[in-house]
Amino acid sequence: MNPSSTYAKFGDLVQIVSSTNKMYFFRLTPGMQLQTHRGVIQHDDLVDISWGSQIYTHIGSPHYLLQPSLADLINEIKRNTQIIYPKEVGFILVTMNIGPGTQVVEAGSGSGALTTALAWAVGEEGRVSSYEMRADMQNLAEKNLKRVGLSDRVDFKLRDISEGFDERNVDALFLDVPTPHHYMEQVRATLKPGGYFGSIVPTTNQVSDLLMALHRYDFAFVDVCEILLRYYKAVPTRLRPTDRMVAHTGYLVFARPMLPAEPPNKNDSGTSSEPETAFEEDD
Amino acid sequence: MNPSSTYAKFGDLVQIVSSTNKMYFFRLTPGMQLQTHRGVIQHDDLVDISWGSQIYTHIGSPHYLLQPSLADLINEIKRNTQIIYPKEVGFILVTMNIGPGTQVVEAGSGSGALTTALAWAVGEEGRVSSYEMRADMQNLAEKNLKRVGLSDRVDFKLRDISEGFDERNVDALFLDVPTPHHYMEQVRATLKPGGYFGSIVPTTNQVSDLLMALHRYDFAFVDVCEILLRYYKAVPTRLRPTDRMVAHTGYLVFARPMLPAEPPNKNDSGTSSEPETAFEEDD
Amino acid sequence: MNPSSTYAKFGDLVQIVSSTNKMYFFRLTPGMQLQTHRGVIQHDDLVDISWGSQIYTHIGSPHYLLQPSLADLINEIKRNTQIIYPKEVGFILVTMNIGPGTQVVEAGSGSGALTTALAWAVGEEGRVSSYEMRADMQNLAEKNLKRVGLSDRVDFKLRDISEGFDERNVDALFLDVPTPHHYMEQVRATLKPGGYFGSIVPTTNQVSDLLMALHRYDFAFVDVCEILLRYYKAVPTRLRPTDRMVAHTGYLVFARPMLPAEPPNKNDSGTSSEPETAFEEDD
Amino acid sequence: MNPSSTYAKFGDLVQIVSSTNKMYFFRLTPGMQLQTHRGVIQHDDLVDISWGSQIYTHIGSPHYLLQPSLADLINEIKRNTQIIYPKEVGFILVTMNIGPGTQVVEAGSGSGALTTALAWAVGEEGRVSSYEMRADMQNLAEKNLKRVGLSDRVDFKLRDISEGFDERNVDALFLDVPTPHHYMEQVRATLKPGGYFGSIVPTTNQVSDLLMALHRYDFAFVDVCEILLRYYKAVPTRLRPTDRMVAHTGYLVFARPMLPAEPPNKNDSGTSSEPETAFEEDD
Repeated sequence: MNPSSTYAKFGDLVQIVSSTNKMYFFRLTPGMQLQTHRGVIQHDDLVDISWGSQIYTHIGSPHYLLQPSLADLINEIKRNTQIIYPKEVGFILVTMNIGPGTQVVEAGSGSGALTTALAWAVGEEGRVSSYEMRADMQNLAEKNLKRVGLSDRVDFKLRDISEGFDERNVDALFLDVPTPHHYMEQVRATLKPGGYFGSIVPTTNQVSDLLMALHRYDFAFVDVCEILLRYYKAVPTRLRPTDRMVAHTGYLVFARPMLPAEPPNKNDSGTSSEPETAFEEDD
Repeated sequence: MNPSSTYAKFGDLVQIVSSTNKMYFFRLTPGMQLQTHRGVIQHDDLVDISWGSQIYTHIGSPHYLLQPSLADLINEIKRNTQIIYPKEVGFILVTMNIGPGTQVVEAGSGSGALTTALAWAVGEEGRVSSYEMRADMQNLAEKNLKRVGLSDRVDFKLRDISEGFDERNVDALFLDVPTPHHYMEQVRATLKPGGYFGSIVPTTNQVSDLLMALHRYDFAFVDVCEILLRYYKAVPTRLRPTDRMVAHTGYLVFARPMLPAEPPNKNDSGTSSEPETAFEEDD
Repeated sequence: MNPSSTYAKFGDLVQIVSSTNKMYFFRLTPGMQLQTHRGVIQHDDLVDISWGSQIYTHIGSPHYLLQPSLADLINEIKRNTQIIYPKEVGFILVTMNIGPGTQVVEAGSGSGALTTALAWAVGEEGRVSSYEMRADMQNLAEKNLKRVGLSDRVDFKLRDISEGFDERNVDALFLDVPTPHHYMEQVRATLKPGGYFGSIVPTTNQVSDLLMALHRYDFAFVDVCEILLRYYKAVPTRLRPTDRMVAHTGYLVFARPMLPAEPPNKNDSGTSSEPETAFEEDD
Repeated sequence: MNPSSTYAKFGDLVQIVSSTNKMYFFRLTPGMQLQTHRGVIQHDDLVDISWGSQIYTHIGSPHYLLQPSLADLINEIKRNTQIIYPKEVGFILVTMNIGPGTQVVEAGSGSGALTTALAWAVGEEGRVSSYEMRADMQNLAEKNLKRVGLSDRVDFKLRDISEGFDERNVDALFLDVPTPHHYMEQVRATLKPGGYFGSIVPTTNQVSDLLMALHRYDFAFVDVCEILLRYYKAVPTRLRPTDRMVAHTGYLVFARPMLPAEPPNKNDSGTSSEPETAFEEDD
């Protein structure tokens, strides 16, 4: 998404930030120009300029030239529809072990915020399948992924997931849908045993419903949590939290599908005579 | 680190979890055996077994066979020395845009928890340089990275970072040291303009010190925050938060180094006659 | 409970705190002695000593002489059974308007922590009725109230509250019982219209049950909240939160019983011809 | 402030709440009328009506008749200037043991929100002295206290507290001023040893300054904390926290002034030969 480059080139995704923190995201294209609220910037003038440089519009208004971060892109997408914030995205990636090479399924695509993060994290060797019921949302998600140059890592599928997923034995599966507890059978058919299941739901009632379904379908290592992110006013001599904060985006639920098994040789052998309690437990 | 496989093979990093949640991490090796507190498991018996399977020791005690997640590995390393938790790691990766292909520098290595996450996230095309002053800590970090098979993506360097970093124009640089504000000159020499700087410090006094230093060295987009992670008891009919939680690991500070510049054509041309206030601001 | 005095007198409730923060609570009595882990203190030696004084045991171990605060006493009672902390108690008093002269009913008494706070806050003109089903708990609560000299403001009643409360038109009623939603009829019979109802429950399922019951029984101004209290290590040059904190005691639910009424003169008069929409709404 | 009555009488402080949650606070007076945005209510029509009743304006718009709670009154005052919320007020009262009969000093008066709570809590036997430098703020605070009928429990004093307080040996003293660390000498001269000191400051830097001053002036039992209050949407089938919350009002600092003393008989007797370590510590 962002090459490890030092200078801007044609084709790069760039972010321009004004002195009033107004942000513009676009791809650098020969002959194009950016119309800001405080003057015009020619794309051609940005080529071979160092990232981080202060640049000026034709009327002298200062801006910064940056490579956008994943968090910036997610925040921008979020403005429309999305409940997942960067604070959740990072934790989801790390907890569900979604990194270079991972095969992931998600539903629904929504506006593509989480899809962007997944496609970014799995790299070129990984693969994301993103299911969505509504054609308009799917179009929006695809558009957002194309804009950041990650759409070729994603298979967008327009489908009601009650009909099941196409994939088998994927490493991780994330549900951002209103009733995740309805789709446990479909999840189990697609997610490999020992893989990572995750979901985000806004209400405690949905958490309870999902926990019951996970239990019925032999999931273990179930975790429910919420993440609170508190920002500070970055003034060294008057350091203090901001006045207000986001109190809730959703409850995160994680679990791993298991394969329960009967103990081998259940009714034979001398081992059963060895009492289990003979072994000390130290944790 | 974890291949997208469905069955365990020799050479895989595996995690065995007992019914009392005791965990064992090791690499699957022909002829070896795991001594648990409740009996023995032969490595050979795990080959070609599906991930997520319930398996049994020689005395019939049930365990699960899993691929360890990044979060599990970080938590295990953390038990020794580390203040960075998975909740911080995920947010650091997303905020500092550390993904496949990124060039990162960190100091100090500590026991290698963040190093593990960085090496995992940057993939095979990325690169991590990890600086540490203490030889014993460096050895521990290297050992931990080797164990998870990620050490070949990391350059470990034994050095006091007041002497500077070797790298130039890296994408991201993270400091987990007691006095990050002392090293801003070294950071600027290594981190590319517009790149991502991050640090974690436990006290408010250190935050104030760091904010002053960042200001002196032309950093912008400075963010200070803390992440609170609250777990719930996953009982659907009695859903409630756990009784106690981690109240503090550290304050996260992020910033991006800028290249301030004088406005071009400052004292000429007709553009200056166009008043800046003629442009409306809409955000 | 604590007279506005400057010097300790016989009959005063005192708190002795050792240099290792071990606390002793007792009433100052002629001829008695306190056996601490670091020596003996004679009650007689404390008379006419200023509150806040450093005093010494017979072997020279330093202690402080204090009047105990309500929070100290609640915390001490809490060690046994109680889920209500001082952070909740203060908010309950202020939100339910429980101050000098208030008539309050509570159930169950538990070990008397909230009872102590209520009896303290209502003063000599107020009155507390405290219901409890278990005789052993009632005895404990009474003993705790006697010890702090507040038992004469409390009527302890041993009863299953499904049989109803004796009082009528009380100002405030608090339920700390497992199924508060079962007792709405009894609450309405006792709490005056417009009075203050409060409850604390540990799980989200109980909150949902209670909300449904409150709705059925014409309560309005319903608030659900939780209070998080975060302590800091009080070191000026290394200021930071403590490592761990209490993540949950319970959800607080507050509501006020209403008397819905039909509009007067519903079908007559010229006022109905005046359209309501003629009046502007400004909030 | 609010009599334990069941029906409204002339002279009572009443709260009228519209169906859109618009609130009116006033004292019931013969012949007066309330002009709401949705019609008129005659004071005379409210006399002998039960608290909690639904009442109607002359054009049939429904409202509720209530006794205002302390929290309502504080919230209403707060809208102007105040940083102290009910969540802090309750904790301050309980922690500083401010109840019926307590003698309290506070500075500054501000708009009188905390003054109201203090005057309410100390009852008729207690006493509050409230210092303020600015005449306009003092007038506002007095007006607010008169309105709720508590001004006769408060001595308002217009003074820079660097000149000291008039009172001696008060039970509790609270500072809500920008530089509380400047007034420790004045605090010690007025607050009785073992009494309760409290303060609220918005920044971490002020906390550090205050902690240093408290240490110099022999305060002990120093606590620093912050209170987070999280509200929920009270919908039983979709229970969830509100989207946003107050992230910070201020840091609370509590401490108690001590009288350090030399051990008696320091250099004599056989007791010194008894080693302190002979006594076991059990906490």
